[in-house]
Amino acid sequence: MSFMFDKVAVLGLGLISSSLCRVMRQNGLAKVISGNAKTESSRSIALEIGLVDSVHEHAADAVKDADLVILCAPVGACGELTAQISLSLKPGAILTDVASVKGAIVRDCGPHVPAGIHFIPGHPIAGTEQSGPRSGFAELFQDRWCILTPVPGTEPAMVAKLEAFWKACGSNVDVMTAEHHDMVLAITSHLPHLIAYNTVATAADLESVTNSEVIKYSASGFRDFTRIAASDPTMWRDIFLNNKDAVLEMLGRFSEELSVLQRAVRWGDGETLFNLFTRAREVRRGIIAAGQDTAAPDFGRGPKKD
Amino acid sequence: MSFMFDKVAVLGLGLISSSLCRVMRQNGLAKVISGNAKTESSRSIALEIGLVDSVHEHAADAVKDADLVILCAPVGACGELTAQISLSLKPGAILTDVASVKGAIVRDCGPHVPAGIHFIPGHPIAGTEQSGPRSGFAELFQDRWCILTPVPGTEPAMVAKLEAFWKACGSNVDVMTAEHHDMVLAITSHLPHLIAYNTVATAADLESVTNSEVIKYSASGFRDFTRIAASDPTMWRDIFLNNKDAVLEMLGRFSEELSVLQRAVRWGDGETLFNLFTRAREVRRGIIAAGQDTAAPDFGRGPKKD
Repeated sequence: MSFMFDKVAVLGLGLISSSLCRVMRQNGLAKVISGNAKTESSRSIALEIGLVDSVHEHAADAVKDADLVILCAPVGACGELTAQISLSLKPGAILTDVASVKGAIVRDCGPHVPAGIHFIPGHPIAGTEQSGPRSGFAELFQDRWCILTPVPGTEPAMVAKLEAFWKACGSNVDVMTAEHHDMVLAITSHLPHLIAYNTVATAADLESVTNSEVIKYSASGFRDFTRIAASDPTMWRDIFLNNKDAVLEMLGRFSEELSVLQRAVRWGDGETLFNLFTRAREVRRGIIAAGQDTAAPDFGRGPKKD
Repeated sequence: MSFMFDKVAVLGLGLISSSLCRVMRQNGLAKVISGNAKTESSRSIALEIGLVDSVHEHAADAVKDADLVILCAPVGACGELTAQISLSLKPGAILTDVASVKGAIVRDCGPHVPAGIHFIPGHPIAGTEQSGPRSGFAELFQDRWCILTPVPGTEPAMVAKLEAFWKACGSNVDVMTAEHHDMVLAITSHLPHLIAYNTVATAADLESVTNSEVIKYSASGFRDFTRIAASDPTMWRDIFLNNKDAVLEMLGRFSEELSVLQRAVRWGDGETLFNLFTRAREVRRGIIAAGQDTAAPDFGRGPKKD
């Protein structure tokens, strides 16, 4: 059997890397997979369930002889991680990552990447609200998009190789600048998460409605917000700290729009409300047509879904 | 076979009433079901798929001899509908509704209810983002909550009868004032929907990121917002117009909290972000523990769910 890479190292053992390990095994993409994680429990679970062939307390030990090294840590930890492995990387290896922010990855990791290493930041647009080494599954990337943001001067053949890897994981691949990526993700991912967290916090702080009432009657919309607000707090803190400008830009626009909507509610302007709601429905139809969700009703739980 | 009601009339033939018709048939709750809807197409579909035994262009014809009449129209249409049926209601009948706002129902319908009719506003907290007579299913109310908001002076035996009806549909039942209901729903349902609509509108208006990019990369959070923003625009317009005070109260609190979060992003205050995100995760755990959602990851679409 021939493999796409002889050895792949994943640094961090959460949802994305555990899904990557599974799809690499399933599709024969790596002969050997080595792993590293900060906590002993993640390392031993990963070994126990066969995600990786070896685990290492020190990231530098995991990357030895690896042809592909994938940083799967929160964005705030990636710079330090790159500094730690810098001297142990195999010449000619590809170094990539999966973080939701790309400008900060270039800024923090770039200076630690030695000559002869092909540094190509990447971001698979896929996930669930769960985390940890047990949360992954091989189908996570199927028909999703992975964005690569190579820095100027990157060898096209190496970008093509990483692109082939993600395609073999089931993804579609797009290439763009780190700056544009961060703007796109600020609106499609970072703003929605911030808003979801904020809605849940608003509800938790009410005096007029108890927390148990909020939970009991959550099936009416609130529930869907808590689902995305259940994602890993450390990962999300790092995202907001590292994509500040784009997030503040989107927040400013969001607040402007919200003032218009608030005014329409206050003045009973049904036409403005109706038109805006109708436009939102059109966007939803576009997402279903693009295969990024199904039209099946979201029932929350029960016989139709589980 | 003995039925709970000899004849039930549903006025409006959308998601809630088509689900009610199915569960009434399944559990033997109504010997005869009559229906009414504004559009000819909804009426003929409802008859064709057997939701109802008869359909009527005029609501007054549908309610004749009905022991239970359920208004299933957008909240803004319920006052006029009650005026239309007022003289045709069977003495002793129960008149209820399913709208997401209760104060406005009491205000708009109450004056048209003749003596001898038991008017008990209600609201099943259940739904999907779909609408129309084909969208219903018998399990919609299973293990969900239905809130009844009887006005002072309502006969307890009649409240008990309506409570028994909803329990026979699979619901749990709570009784509270219309005012408290409207506050609870403003935070658990109305605010989340308004925020979701606003997020989708913000994304649709960007110059720096195209609509097709928003759609393509929606799997990262945005998708979940579009799902709840796909709900019926007329129904939601009416809800915001009719629960103005509570919605504006929640919006004010939401904006206050958002300013705190925005400041934390601007000043790089990771601790504030981390603590808020951790609290939000706790609320999510409460919802799962209360059986209002499962812990299964939300994958959007695909082999794990469909």
